[in-house]
Amino acid sequence: MKRIGMLTSGGDCQALNAAMRGVVKSLLNSGQDVEIYGFLNGYKGLIYGDFKMLTGKDFSGILTVGGTILGSSRTPFKTIKDPDENGLNKVEAMKQNYHKLQLDCLVILGGNGTHKTANLLRQEGLNVVTLPKTIDNDLYGTDMTFGFQSAVDIATDCIDCIHTTAASHGRIFIVEVMGHKVGYLTLNAGMAGGADIILIPEIPYDIDKIVDAVKQREKNGSKFTIIAVAEGAISKEDAKLSKKEYQKKLEKRKYPSVSYEVAAQILEKTGQEVRVTVPGHTQRGGSPCPYDRVFASRLGAEAGKLILAGEYGFMVGYRNREIVKVPLEDVAGKLKMLDPESTIIKEAKMLGISFGD
Amino acid sequence: MKRIGMLTSGGDCQALNAAMRGVVKSLLNSGQDVEIYGFLNGYKGLIYGDFKMLTGKDFSGILTVGGTILGSSRTPFKTIKDPDENGLNKVEAMKQNYHKLQLDCLVILGGNGTHKTANLLRQEGLNVVTLPKTIDNDLYGTDMTFGFQSAVDIATDCIDCIHTTAASHGRIFIVEVMGHKVGYLTLNAGMAGGADIILIPEIPYDIDKIVDAVKQREKNGSKFTIIAVAEGAISKEDAKLSKKEYQKKLEKRKYPSVSYEVAAQILEKTGQEVRVTVPGHTQRGGSPCPYDRVFASRLGAEAGKLILAGEYGFMVGYRNREIVKVPLEDVAGKLKMLDPESTIIKEAKMLGISFGD
Amino acid sequence: MKRIGMLTSGGDCQALNAAMRGVVKSLLNSGQDVEIYGFLNGYKGLIYGDFKMLTGKDFSGILTVGGTILGSSRTPFKTIKDPDENGLNKVEAMKQNYHKLQLDCLVILGGNGTHKTANLLRQEGLNVVTLPKTIDNDLYGTDMTFGFQSAVDIATDCIDCIHTTAASHGRIFIVEVMGHKVGYLTLNAGMAGGADIILIPEIPYDIDKIVDAVKQREKNGSKFTIIAVAEGAISKEDAKLSKKEYQKKLEKRKYPSVSYEVAAQILEKTGQEVRVTVPGHTQRGGSPCPYDRVFASRLGAEAGKLILAGEYGFMVGYRNREIVKVPLEDVAGKLKMLDPESTIIKEAKMLGISFGD
Amino acid sequence: MKRIGMLTSGGDCQALNAAMRGVVKSLLNSGQDVEIYGFLNGYKGLIYGDFKMLTGKDFSGILTVGGTILGSSRTPFKTIKDPDENGLNKVEAMKQNYHKLQLDCLVILGGNGTHKTANLLRQEGLNVVTLPKTIDNDLYGTDMTFGFQSAVDIATDCIDCIHTTAASHGRIFIVEVMGHKVGYLTLNAGMAGGADIILIPEIPYDIDKIVDAVKQREKNGSKFTIIAVAEGAISKEDAKLSKKEYQKKLEKRKYPSVSYEVAAQILEKTGQEVRVTVPGHTQRGGSPCPYDRVFASRLGAEAGKLILAGEYGFMVGYRNREIVKVPLEDVAGKLKMLDPESTIIKEAKMLGISFGD
Repeated sequence: MKRIGMLTSGGDCQALNAAMRGVVKSLLNSGQDVEIYGFLNGYKGLIYGDFKMLTGKDFSGILTVGGTILGSSRTPFKTIKDPDENGLNKVEAMKQNYHKLQLDCLVILGGNGTHKTANLLRQEGLNVVTLPKTIDNDLYGTDMTFGFQSAVDIATDCIDCIHTTAASHGRIFIVEVMGHKVGYLTLNAGMAGGADIILIPEIPYDIDKIVDAVKQREKNGSKFTIIAVAEGAISKEDAKLSKKEYQKKLEKRKYPSVSYEVAAQILEKTGQEVRVTVPGHTQRGGSPCPYDRVFASRLGAEAGKLILAGEYGFMVGYRNREIVKVPLEDVAGKLKMLDPESTIIKEAKMLGISFGD
Repeated sequence: MKRIGMLTSGGDCQALNAAMRGVVKSLLNSGQDVEIYGFLNGYKGLIYGDFKMLTGKDFSGILTVGGTILGSSRTPFKTIKDPDENGLNKVEAMKQNYHKLQLDCLVILGGNGTHKTANLLRQEGLNVVTLPKTIDNDLYGTDMTFGFQSAVDIATDCIDCIHTTAASHGRIFIVEVMGHKVGYLTLNAGMAGGADIILIPEIPYDIDKIVDAVKQREKNGSKFTIIAVAEGAISKEDAKLSKKEYQKKLEKRKYPSVSYEVAAQILEKTGQEVRVTVPGHTQRGGSPCPYDRVFASRLGAEAGKLILAGEYGFMVGYRNREIVKVPLEDVAGKLKMLDPESTIIKEAKMLGISFGD
Repeated sequence: MKRIGMLTSGGDCQALNAAMRGVVKSLLNSGQDVEIYGFLNGYKGLIYGDFKMLTGKDFSGILTVGGTILGSSRTPFKTIKDPDENGLNKVEAMKQNYHKLQLDCLVILGGNGTHKTANLLRQEGLNVVTLPKTIDNDLYGTDMTFGFQSAVDIATDCIDCIHTTAASHGRIFIVEVMGHKVGYLTLNAGMAGGADIILIPEIPYDIDKIVDAVKQREKNGSKFTIIAVAEGAISKEDAKLSKKEYQKKLEKRKYPSVSYEVAAQILEKTGQEVRVTVPGHTQRGGSPCPYDRVFASRLGAEAGKLILAGEYGFMVGYRNREIVKVPLEDVAGKLKMLDPESTIIKEAKMLGISFGD
Repeated sequence: MKRIGMLTSGGDCQALNAAMRGVVKSLLNSGQDVEIYGFLNGYKGLIYGDFKMLTGKDFSGILTVGGTILGSSRTPFKTIKDPDENGLNKVEAMKQNYHKLQLDCLVILGGNGTHKTANLLRQEGLNVVTLPKTIDNDLYGTDMTFGFQSAVDIATDCIDCIHTTAASHGRIFIVEVMGHKVGYLTLNAGMAGGADIILIPEIPYDIDKIVDAVKQREKNGSKFTIIAVAEGAISKEDAKLSKKEYQKKLEKRKYPSVSYEVAAQILEKTGQEVRVTVPGHTQRGGSPCPYDRVFASRLGAEAGKLILAGEYGFMVGYRNREIVKVPLEDVAGKLKMLDPESTIIKEAKMLGISFGD
């Protein structure tokens, strides 16, 4: 008999339900008796003992359903050790609820922030297995995260739609793609959508190089330009600032995001109006794409296997086409960045895509 | 032998190519010899004699292709009689090009602004047949315009995606749908996406009623709320202002659009953060939906029939499930608004949707 | 207080859930107390008293969900008056269950067969309100049925996919579209997908005319041909047979469907291989398209209004863009066929589409 | 200056155009002068000297377009050395055309059959670079082929649609997925669509095990079952036959495919009707999915790099997340099968999926 606690934390994404279904199906199919406690709304549920008991039926039919049946919320790691507004020690509360329910382990689905807290709970002696969820694909220790390909699909759809209207009107369009720190999503959606210029956090841009690329396209007879801009794209100058200085500058910036700033600068330098489209949270919503459904199901099944074997303290990851267990201490607190010298960036440049560098 | 000029004007939308293909196919299939002059980038092409000669092959394979193979641009009716920056009389230039090419007629695809100029050309003695293109479905004289259903589909997809993330996080979300003056698109996408609150220009809103609706949902156990807001949604107070006063107020507004203003007000009154998503120009892009492909093809075929019969001065429209010819003078300068007392609004209210009124 | 029985009968289709949600939402929003008995698997549930009690929550979140939460089955009208295998009088059983539960009315969602039985129940003194469900759009008394547009979308997607492969290989392809008796679905999907030849039950075909159309396309330089064939397409010769003779002939036919027969005949007469694709039941599955969601919701709301007013014996239909109540006796047993002389057929021919006639 | 011949051979699939665009863009962006000869309809174009000269513009805007702008056809390797019906030596003809046009190399896109001929041409002294195209992902030497993920998406969509109708009617449904020899596509679409039983060529099935799985589901309260069947699925008995014996048996089989045979056997053994859906050629049609667009573009870019470096005789493949060059002699004539003992199969079984073994 296994008593499992489960929670989804951080921004939601596609295939969270598929992954949880995978865990539960593999446990139930093992013949083992299993009790599942679903903590509601991320770590909050674990802190405040807010859960519901779930059975196999609750996980039936959710393979294709977006979001998370457990709800999610952000519980910042930075303040996890601080007492809550009523003086409650949150870490102790989580431990107590874990022990009170006599759980064998926690299954935690989340991204970077979530993994820091998961590792903390491991250090505090709790049995933890985690699954790598994020549309950003920036989690250390795994080549891929679920949610990523679904988000690429949505952002690409958006660029596809913009393509026809950009071409019809001979205009410059910016599509702002999610990703504050890493550019995988923007790069892949940009390449899939045929963007001419792609701006990502890992490759600071020079606005003059962007303008050159636009002008070069005009010279070659292309009357429109599509620019895919990551939320966290940054200019070469700004990249030289300290984190604090940059933060200050951002606060004073009169544009809602970097895309609008780039748009204004292009207008200023070329006289051409630039339209900005922000698909925003749609990128983490809707039914997971088939790739993510298969991938999340596989990871879930392997998480079930670890639990049955009593192997805890791992994230189930994916490396070199193999599903692997990665020690949580190797994952927590690290970010997987896109290397500006990586093959895919070089290939994108060979295809004529400008990164404004 | 017929010599046809063709142009697409105003914001592009889905099924423009399908409609043009319909016109050309029906002309060619009639056995008549036809010469087609495609004017580029809307009325500009007609003004400056910028065109290319097209054959049936140019219209093959474009049924499913978004945008317009002729390009489009906005040529404001307000200044159509003013000389251009080089002193050219634009109306005279259009007439001259028409006569120089010995055209039998012009086929003009566009929305409200386009129809005003089309009617002017008719008054100036040119033979004109028009087709009703707009994602807003606000063209007078026709129950339906092509582009509308495709835009509904895209905006609904967006709300669907937001739905899963809103439900997972228990949040309030606003999706801003295109439509500055009329609410058909927002109403239909909102109903299709299961929006809880819909704000449209025709029904000015009271922010307190919106807040009431949000709170009522909470009471009923719904932790999230989806609000579909038309670009042109307006508060009851603002609706009392004169056009000028309102314009002035808008210029001073610190929010990029009404959605952000409503979001800020809800935050202020409830303490709940509201996320805003703006699909923007994606709503007029991409491949037309099957409904629009059939509809635009049919209108195109009937336009071809009018041309063969030499019946000019009409928009091909759709009324009570019949395709009809509508005199251009009846169309030009009028807007088809959504009646706040119409059946569909009443039905939406029966379904529990709040309009904030 | 209203006690409502509800059931979905016949082949399932998209937007059944959306329609039921509309009925329930409009009843609940009226302030009236409502008890809802959901009969399972069509009339079977009513016959055998197999139901579950439902609340508003059961209808929350199902707007976008395909299929029917009540299940469905076919209960042929032809044998409805015959006793079942245990000697049970089915009509009496339905009446008894209706009275035992003290229902105020039945809400029945279905197509042609379903409406015959619904009308019978009305004649037997039960209060009945129906909603027009069928992907075939062949229900008498309404211009449109829900499910139709969603099925058009799926069948068109299929033709779109086939288009690229047909063009790449220069081949003839047949896509078999659902519709045994009427051709609306095939006609609309065919027009939307750019089919070159469309075969529907209402216009018997001559195989030689089909071959002529293929050859004409070759002469014009088109290396591929797409043929949309309704399941119930019929040759001119076969159309002359009596129903019985035709049935006999069908039983002996060595092809699984008419599409394969047409394919074999084209091969014989031209030497060109023809590939057949049969999307089949996919056409009635998946999430309803936005058009159907709005339409079904509206019909549902109006059904709720009838119930609140105690107006029974009607199907809620749609005519000339108005939602209307149609006496069940006017609907039952009639089929809405596609008139070969209708405008849309003429327009399709103007576009160069051959119907093989 | 480089003179490149290019051709696409075998069944078409998604992203062929994207891959060719990648090759051409990377060549043109290198600054090198390039002449591109596009051979039409596969090897036929090379044999009969049927080509058109192409420029960069021909490859603009085709990233998202399905099919192949060059056309394709099957030219069986088995008879490639035989003279054609006019006595022409096909291999010699290809060599002559290659030399007559003074080509620097051939870029050949295709699957297994195509690679055999490509390797033959290499052996005959021609410079060849190939790209791995097939929806089956069965090409030796590469972890992934383009077309595969797009086909998975389409087949999954199909299963999704069937899911709602199967659930509504409590029925057993078979979806027949492409794949005569290998099961990657069926396995992935089956897992993504939540199929309960998956039959693939690599794991011969026992009909009784299938029936057991159906009955087990019933016992667990599941009223419907979805079975994904590869075209080349085979029973344990038939797997014991020699190739010849099996071929003979197939010719006598009264069912159009194995799916129908399995359906009939289930009916016989359980009394339950089974519906079969065959998405067929739709699986290789339509716009490539974003994954395939990125992947094919990357492969194309790397092919361009090889050409610029004068490195010939390779297929551009993908192994362990690296793009690699694979000697053609290592690829030709080998098939990449799905190992019944592979991790993904084990995971699928952990999820409760039956393979009928």
